[in-house]
Parts: sequence; structure tokens; C-alpha cells
Amino acid sequence: MFADFFEPRCIGIIGSFREGFFGGYTVVKSLLNAGYKGEIYPVNPGYEAVLGLKAYPSIKDLPGRPDVVLIMINARSVGHVLQECGSRGVRAAIVVADGFAERNQDGVRLQKEIVARAGKNGMRIVGPNTAGIVNTENGFNPCPYDAGYYRLKRGGVAICSQTGMINPQAVPFPDLHLGISKICDLGNKCDVDECDILEYLESDAATKVISLYLEGIKDGQRFLKTARRVARKKPILVHKPGKTRAGARASSSHTGSLALDDRLFDGLSRQAGVFRLDRFHELFEVPKIFSSQPPARGNRLGIITFTGAVGVIALDEGAKYGLTLARLSPKTQALLDNIFPGTGKVPVDLGPVMAAVKDFFPLYPKVLGAVMADENVHALFNILWIGVGAENAGYFLEAYKALKGKREKPIATWVYGPEKSSTRALERDLEDLGFPVFSEPETCIKALGLSVQYASD
Amino acid sequence: MFADFFEPRCIGIIGSFREGFFGGYTVVKSLLNAGYKGEIYPVNPGYEAVLGLKAYPSIKDLPGRPDVVLIMINARSVGHVLQECGSRGVRAAIVVADGFAERNQDGVRLQKEIVARAGKNGMRIVGPNTAGIVNTENGFNPCPYDAGYYRLKRGGVAICSQTGMINPQAVPFPDLHLGISKICDLGNKCDVDECDILEYLESDAATKVISLYLEGIKDGQRFLKTARRVARKKPILVHKPGKTRAGARASSSHTGSLALDDRLFDGLSRQAGVFRLDRFHELFEVPKIFSSQPPARGNRLGIITFTGAVGVIALDEGAKYGLTLARLSPKTQALLDNIFPGTGKVPVDLGPVMAAVKDFFPLYPKVLGAVMADENVHALFNILWIGVGAENAGYFLEAYKALKGKREKPIATWVYGPEKSSTRALERDLEDLGFPVFSEPETCIKALGLSVQYASD
Repeated sequence: MFADFFEPRCIGIIGSFREGFFGGYTVVKSLLNAGYKGEIYPVNPGYEAVLGLKAYPSIKDLPGRPDVVLIMINARSVGHVLQECGSRGVRAAIVVADGFAERNQDGVRLQKEIVARAGKNGMRIVGPNTAGIVNTENGFNPCPYDAGYYRLKRGGVAICSQTGMINPQAVPFPDLHLGISKICDLGNKCDVDECDILEYLESDAATKVISLYLEGIKDGQRFLKTARRVARKKPILVHKPGKTRAGARASSSHTGSLALDDRLFDGLSRQAGVFRLDRFHELFEVPKIFSSQPPARGNRLGIITFTGAVGVIALDEGAKYGLTLARLSPKTQALLDNIFPGTGKVPVDLGPVMAAVKDFFPLYPKVLGAVMADENVHALFNILWIGVGAENAGYFLEAYKALKGKREKPIATWVYGPEKSSTRALERDLEDLGFPVFSEPETCIKALGLSVQYASD
Repeated sequence: MFADFFEPRCIGIIGSFREGFFGGYTVVKSLLNAGYKGEIYPVNPGYEAVLGLKAYPSIKDLPGRPDVVLIMINARSVGHVLQECGSRGVRAAIVVADGFAERNQDGVRLQKEIVARAGKNGMRIVGPNTAGIVNTENGFNPCPYDAGYYRLKRGGVAICSQTGMINPQAVPFPDLHLGISKICDLGNKCDVDECDILEYLESDAATKVISLYLEGIKDGQRFLKTARRVARKKPILVHKPGKTRAGARASSSHTGSLALDDRLFDGLSRQAGVFRLDRFHELFEVPKIFSSQPPARGNRLGIITFTGAVGVIALDEGAKYGLTLARLSPKTQALLDNIFPGTGKVPVDLGPVMAAVKDFFPLYPKVLGAVMADENVHALFNILWIGVGAENAGYFLEAYKALKGKREKPIATWVYGPEKSSTRALERDLEDLGFPVFSEPETCIKALGLSVQYASD
């Protein structure tokens, strides 16, 4: 069934095809640019063709049955169109149209009506009020808003939400270096919900980790059962606001969903082995530790830093996740102390070394290699300072290249320095080598902490 | 006394002047590039001149008494040099040299010795193990590491810490759009401490808000008394890790300072009216709400957004700070509902409007103006979506320009969209207009929350 949503051989698009940043025209453009190879049927009696593709006046005129339809018309007309689609045997509908339960009582009624109509025909609905779906494997990216880029980097992270804030028009994916498998905005979640998606992603080979933004869950028992089973195979990360009453009320008017008592949800998450996130940006960052790094074999944290303060912050944050400081083996200790006395302990503070030892940076690959090879270190938080003109970047890259292929323990990197142009370039190069870089030290530690917890569960 | 540190007419620099990214050479270069107009005396018997400035073999050969000296030599020699400086009547020393209490027991002894030597001569020490000081008013930026840029944007934010992580070599200040008054890394804090700095900043006209990173405090009673007095005049924001025992132990080996029981510190902060921060990056972001925005006259939060989800997150976060949702006046409500039915409530969700109303963006300045003028709104969280090619940027800028000069209530902005180049450009333009932009929605809310709390205290 879900293959119809993510792997359709044919999509029908019902809406306006006026050129603009939103609408059917953009959906077609996005699909073409993303390299989707299936059939695309624009449906609108006012058009002969859209971007070189033949358009059809109505569903019943289509030359074949679409596996999925994408609907962006007035809310009041959606029910009728779903009926037509059902008659043609369509089994999956992405309802981008809004003005349903999130708007007012009329909308609540309309939403019930479309669920009933679809149900009669055995059709499933994603939405309404959704920004849609992405599958990076087949270029299926029917984005209803212009995103400017179309081919997302492929990778193991699936993101699913009750908001379009995870879809390409809202997120600068190319700058985030995030490898994506699937994206799905459930919108008002009138039918397809988080459990359906979890079940689909459970057996999706491309997906290695699942990031969820939820404002409520439909069925606590089903969520517990499903999430627990899936979480054993793939880590599940959830950000759910509504911790306060004010937040809960707001989410009800956003997606029309009943908010959930937060303590109840917290208990469910714990029982299911699901990790909760605290900030929106974590949805796009924390999963990288699971999609690109091996699991940790224990909780001993190594830290290499150019600043003592961030070492202190790291330890403090790490304690929240049960991470403790690694004690280096005598061999590593000797190697480091030989470079500069007193360096052979965690945090390995290279700040004083860099200032005191002439031409220290060529020794950097040795330092990183030794700490990563140390059997007492289970996970590494690596802090890189990149100076003016990025003169030290080459040595850092050399060090990471030497780690490639070893994949014995997770490493999370934070880059800082006086020039954003240099820090950004180094971040990109490290990500291209397959090593995740995070925007804040606290996020590095959170990612490593959850990696250790997941591996030990 | 402190004028010697921040407003010296003359600085002596004792160290190596070998070209490189660290050392006396860099200090001189940084001072010259930052536009420092005072006398600069490089002190080293091995040089005739440094960057065109005459060098002197020793302190006693200097043609005049420096107001401050900056010392970056071997830890064991610092005591002797301080003695010489004392004999010349120098009253202020910035000791960049490391290898003191943060290193080992020998260092602890050396540190006690330099404190004793300085004390005998009535000299004060910032450091040791410090990355120094910046004063943007007079171009006094003796940065010991090359930072690549030298003239920091002037503004009302003073940042003080026990780490060089706040100094120019570590922070891309030009990209942060942060207007700085003073920077001071206290290093090991052997003499000058947070209370001394607070007292100085209390009457520093350029400073409007103070950001502190502390790993411990020297004297709880004095901190309480000083911070309470200063906080009445200027907001004080503190980030102190060491909430866990592991963090506390780590901070002891970082700056050699005794860590403080975190609950005790929390109590002191509360009594003193000091706000605690949770993440490192907040040190550079949260103060912007105080340095550039007027105080809030109440706790009613307005939200304008293009995404329902971030509205939900905002409310949830806002509740932590006692913010409640503003109820718009009938006039504002009518204006918004007239643009698109259902829009006249907080959060003002422009997502559906933008998709449904042809040519909506030219109406944007009207929307922002009306909500900001609404007497029921005390503080505004404004979320901007910037589309492909930044086509809507002009309307946003027009709207903010119309607010300039009114300064009636604080506004915190978060920008998102599919193109980092466009979001960054808009962020820069808004900051140039004097409106603070934050990197995450949660940081916007924290800034507004603290602004409301400070104004109501």
C-alpha cells in the first residue's frame, strides 16, 4: 500500500497550473528536476499541457490509473475529487489542500467527509494540509512550493512530521549535508499517521534512522507497540512540543489534532525506546550520528579540543547521557605527552600545544589516529579550530581520511574559528568524507550520548 | 584602575615577535589593524623593530611607562618580568602566558608567586592563561592569535569569560552581527575576577548588557552584592557549566579554579537577578535583545509566522518564561481577517495566506505594522520564510524599515527557507537595520522571555 505513496509509477496532479512559487506547476517542475521517471498526469480542464506534459481535463480522462494523486484545490471540492479518484481505482492521495480541521468547524466536517469517502474506496490519505512527500531513491519529490533545488543528497535519514517545516521549501538541505531517504509531512493526519509511516519505514532498506516531529499521537497503545518494534531495528528520534498547556492548545489549532498529555507521551517514549529531542534543529542534526557512524561499544567519551571551556561543557552535557571521561591507554598517553607534556589525558587539550609547539599541525593526524585507536575510548567528540586562511584544514582532512574505512567508533565533530567561510568549507569537506559535523557542541554530545544509549539498549 | 586595562594610552608587549599565527607579532598586527592610536612598545632584546615600530630590549629601556603590559613568555619568567614592570610603575598586566594553575602543582606555585609579586607593587593581573581584552571604542584589540579581522562592530554587548572562546580568534564576529563594547577573558582569574569586571562595566557607558561565561566564582557574597547592584542597571546573562560533578571536575583542570556547587550558584543568580543561559552560542545571541531592542511592557507575546509548527514551539517555549499569547485588538483582527479569513489571531499564520492570496507579499508591511502597533502585543516573535531567489525579501525589509525609530516593543526574528544564501542575506540586512535575528526559534523566545522578565523585575 505505502509503495503507492513513495514508489508510484504514475502520479496524477489535480490543481491549478498557473506559474508561481506554489501549486501544480511547481509540483510538475519539481518532479521533472528531481529526475522522477514515472508518468506525470496534470489534471485541469483549463490546460492542454504543463511544462511539455499533456494535461487532462479530469480524472476519468486519464490514460491510466495513477498510483497516487496529489490534490491542491479548494477544500470543499476535495471530497468530490476523491470520489472520482476512487472510481478510477486510485488507492493513495496526498491532500495538500488546507482549510480542514486546522481552520474551523466547517473544516472539521469536511475532513470527516473526505476520510469517509476515501475509506469507502479503500483509499488512504496523507494530509490534508500537507507539504507532501519525498523519496530520494526515485526522484519522487512533488514539492508544492518552489524549493530551488531538487535532488536531495541520498542517505539513511527519514524525516516525518505534522508540518511542512521538514520539506524542501523550508529546509536548506544542501547546506545541512544531510543524507535523506524519505520525507513525509502528515499534515492534519486525518488518515495515514505516525504508526503507518513507522511500519513502512521499518522495512525500508534505505532508511537507517527516523526523525519525527509530532504534535500528538492518535493511538497510544499502537504507538507503543509499533515504535518499540521499529526502534529495535532503527533508532527513532522524536521532537514533540506541547510540554506546556499553552503549547498543547496551540498544536490543536495548528493541525487540529488532539494534543497529548506530555508526561504520558514521555512514558510511552521511554517504554518504546524512542529518544526525545528538545529543539527543532536537532531533527536535522542528531540523526546523522546514526546514519553515518558505527555504534559505540561503551560509554567512555574521548574529547580532543583546542579550547578547555568546550571540554568542560562537553563533560557536563555528556553526564546527562551517562557518558564518562575516557582514560587513555599508556601508549596513547605517552605519544601525546611526548608531543607536549601534560597533553596525555582527556580532554586532550591542543590549545596550549598549538601555541607552544612550532609546526604542531603536521602532527595532528597522529593525535587523532592515536585517540581513535585507543581501546579505552568508545566515542569521540572532536573539536576543530580552523585559523585564518584555513591553513590547518589540510592536516585535519588528512587525519579524517586516515580514519575512513575503519568505522570502529562514532566521532562527532564541531568546527569553530574566526572565519565562517573557512569553518563552512571544512564542515563540507568532512561531511563529504562521511563524518558528521554539528552546529553546536551541545548537539555533538547529544548525538553521541544517544548513540551510546541506543547501542547499549 | 580598570581604565589601564581597557583604555591604555600605551601598551608594552613582552614576548616573541616571530611571525606566525600566535605571539607578540600578532598582537602588534592586531592593534595596528584595529586602529589603536596609543603607543605600542614591543619588548624583546632580539628585535630592532616590529612591523615598523621600534622594539626595546627590556622594560627599563622603555621611553615611557606603559599603562598596561601584555606578557606572553615562559611561565617561569613571568614573575621576574612583573617585578620589572612594577618597578617602572606599571599597574596593569595581561598575562597571556599559560602553564600555571591549569597545568600542574608547579604551575599553582608559580601562579601564587605572580599574584604576590604584583600585589606588592599594587599591580593588577588579568589572567594568566588568557586570550586578552578588546575595547571596540578605541581599537584596543591586542589579540594574541591571528583573527583575520580586526575592527569589530561596535555595540552595547560586553562579553567576559574564563576562556578565550569569546575572543576574536575563536568567534566569527562579523558573521554574528553582534555589536561589542568590551571583551575580557579572565583566564585563570588569579587576580581580576568577575566582580571586578562587573564593577567596571557597571559604569561603562558603552555597555548595555553583560554576557558572562564562568566556571566558578571566587566570592559568593561579593558576587551576590555586586551582581545584584549591576543587574539593576544592565542585564547580566551567565553561562556556567559544571552542573554535573564531571563538569565541575573538568573545569577545575581547565582554569584551576574551584568549581562551585551548582545549586548554590543557581540560588545566588536568582537572588542577584542574573539570568542563566544553557548553551554556549546563547552568550553571543541572547544579549542582542537587550542591546538593540526596547524593553517589553508586559508578557503578551505576538507571533507572526509562515509555519504553524514553529508557532506551537514558540508558545511551548514561551510558557517557560511566563509569556502568554496576545489577543489581538478588534482593529488588527479585522485588518488581518480582511486579507484572509481566520488570520486575525495569534499566532498570525501567513502560511495558508501566502498560498491562497495572489500577490500577498506586498501586503506584508501592513501586517507587521498592524501587529507591532497593537497595544495588546508586548513583544513579537517574527518568523520569516524567504523563498527561492529571495523574491519576498524586499517586502520584509520595507516592513522593518517602517518600524525603525518607533522602538516601542521588542521584536525577535527567525529566518528560514530553502536557500542559505538568501536567509543569510536577509539576516544581515535586518541586523544592519538594527533588528536582531537569531539562529533558532528557541533562542528568539528565550531572548524575548528574558527581556520580559528583566523589564518586569
